[in-house]
Amino acid sequence: MAEHYLDNSATTAVSTAAAQKAVELMCENFANPSSLHSLGFKAAKELEAARSKVAGLLGAEPSELCFTSGGTEANNLAILGTAEALRRRGNRIVTTATEHSSVHDTMLHLQKEGFDVVFISPDEQGHISPKEVTDAVNSKTILVSIMLVNNETGAINPVREIFSAIKRKNPDTVLHTDAVQALGKLEIKAKKLFADLITVSGHKVHAPKGVGALFVRKGVRLIPRTFGGSQEKKLRTGTEAAPLICAFGTACEEIDIAKSTRTAKELNTYLREKLSQMPDIIINSPEDASPFVLNFSVKGIRSETMLHHLASTGVYVSSGSACSKGAKSHVLKSMGLADDVIDSAIRVSFSKHNTQSDCDALLEGLAAGINTLAKR
Amino acid sequence: MAEHYLDNSATTAVSTAAAQKAVELMCENFANPSSLHSLGFKAAKELEAARSKVAGLLGAEPSELCFTSGGTEANNLAILGTAEALRRRGNRIVTTATEHSSVHDTMLHLQKEGFDVVFISPDEQGHISPKEVTDAVNSKTILVSIMLVNNETGAINPVREIFSAIKRKNPDTVLHTDAVQALGKLEIKAKKLFADLITVSGHKVHAPKGVGALFVRKGVRLIPRTFGGSQEKKLRTGTEAAPLICAFGTACEEIDIAKSTRTAKELNTYLREKLSQMPDIIINSPEDASPFVLNFSVKGIRSETMLHHLASTGVYVSSGSACSKGAKSHVLKSMGLADDVIDSAIRVSFSKHNTQSDCDALLEGLAAGINTLAKR
Repeated sequence: MAEHYLDNSATTAVSTAAAQKAVELMCENFANPSSLHSLGFKAAKELEAARSKVAGLLGAEPSELCFTSGGTEANNLAILGTAEALRRRGNRIVTTATEHSSVHDTMLHLQKEGFDVVFISPDEQGHISPKEVTDAVNSKTILVSIMLVNNETGAINPVREIFSAIKRKNPDTVLHTDAVQALGKLEIKAKKLFADLITVSGHKVHAPKGVGALFVRKGVRLIPRTFGGSQEKKLRTGTEAAPLICAFGTACEEIDIAKSTRTAKELNTYLREKLSQMPDIIINSPEDASPFVLNFSVKGIRSETMLHHLASTGVYVSSGSACSKGAKSHVLKSMGLADDVIDSAIRVSFSKHNTQSDCDALLEGLAAGINTLAKR
Repeated sequence: MAEHYLDNSATTAVSTAAAQKAVELMCENFANPSSLHSLGFKAAKELEAARSKVAGLLGAEPSELCFTSGGTEANNLAILGTAEALRRRGNRIVTTATEHSSVHDTMLHLQKEGFDVVFISPDEQGHISPKEVTDAVNSKTILVSIMLVNNETGAINPVREIFSAIKRKNPDTVLHTDAVQALGKLEIKAKKLFADLITVSGHKVHAPKGVGALFVRKGVRLIPRTFGGSQEKKLRTGTEAAPLICAFGTACEEIDIAKSTRTAKELNTYLREKLSQMPDIIINSPEDASPFVLNFSVKGIRSETMLHHLASTGVYVSSGSACSKGAKSHVLKSMGLADDVIDSAIRVSFSKHNTQSDCDALLEGLAAGINTLAKR
């Protein structure tokens, strides 16, 4: 059976070059990058080369990049590290209701700890109003965290517009964006975005799981979450996961935003058009969403039922965030969608490796599913 | 130039089988283990197989194992997670002065936060007195953390004896052992040790850097350090680093404690004997230390000088913990060793791959170093 992997927002296959780089740092150039002998230096050199590559993609200095074990850790470090560093200055934090669970749940934790967390809801299209965010920022605001591209709908937030307005209103506010679903898909330049903190993750861009990074603008102070060695300037201690970090660097080198976007746009347009001709389908992603994500609902058929049916035909999609493991989507809920729309949502997410045949297999599977499953 | 890697306590080369397993989970069976489709299940199945393998080695149930990004994260989770969970019950914590920096620095952090942390010092041999530890435990003690094998000297702590005595004195005390340098070298059975929490790390046993685990005995409650998805029973969120975790499982399968110990003992005995015949050398490791580590000082020659000289001859050793990057060893200091002994310390650490030729190369390098460097 041919396989059609359309769940690239959950994770991607590691590229051959990235995997080879990981193996090189596992088996040959395997020393501890913190070791003081020449083998350690050799590994450290590769580590720093990777740092330059990832930083370069964000328009950042290598020294502004802190490697973590992934996007979740980077988001936690950004948010909890800022809250801890600035809790004496103020206790308001502004975010959106559509963030990934690693931001959302961290905010709920801070709310319990007494922080005044404001969650801005999107409209029915998933759009966040820049004015609403800026209005919520007051003199007590220490942190604003807004994702660049939503992982469930592909909605693109006007982060640059929002951050530049906040920098004018309260320049002391630390500005964080979770760019996990944007890396390799949208240009992310730290300065252009007015961002102080940017989260990225390896495994969404054909690097292995287990590595991510936090851009920390020079001068921005975070309280570390882990204590121990002196790695990553003591911001994130523990032996550096050199094989993963170097593979992440290699994967970043392979990124070609223009080319991947062209592929995603073609497939997205094709799929939207075909889906719009099917009677039982509602598209949940906004028109101007990232072309890499398309969220829609198949009326009357629960997401999991459809997902398993599609998987049985070799088509792999998701019902929302993999991290939420089938729990009701807080993102779609915050958009005010009806329960039956939320419960039947399907997320398709593309990578540069997808082709029209993947879309055709999906469409065929959907049509068969609608015929057979709905009758049950 | 032949290379002689004698820095296996800093990190080890990844085994071919472990690296192959990592690549399999990166490139073929690459789905997100939390994805609800069959590819996700396939990856999750491998993840759970690895969990069983690592848990098995600790005599634990798979459900008692929480994967982390490494030993540092596991130690932080154990200590900070317990302190947070039990801070209302008491504020005394007992540890030793010889712990790895990921325990030591975390304890210093808790001390700053107001916890009453007692650091038990070793004797000049690096031995911790069980009585001193037990005496320090009172009714307010919530946590005791004692490493099994010291990373700098190889000193083996009588953890079982200490923990069983504490369980009698104050059964509510949570008992944690950092077993990073013991895994694959000593039998570690959670129940036999009376341990509630055990830290292990992959990259010390020929698995990749970036993965470790915390054994959490059933019923022991920790407050998580990261918030987000529902991975690892919400104790440690974020997409599971399946390639690393599965490679860790494979590396654990390859462990043969008896065989590796035989190799290490032979080499250790050989090296000790030869070193004892050299006039300028003082052995810092206790006689009954783990055979995998041998710490000694070369009078009058600074560690870094000797280390670089040895590296120039293809022999790689360390001056102490790689994590401390050349800072003065708090372990040797706590043993009451003289400054010139501490400043000239060299740590040799074996793996199953070492042979007598590695020792001979080291001895030759040392002799040449003593002749040429000391004259400077």
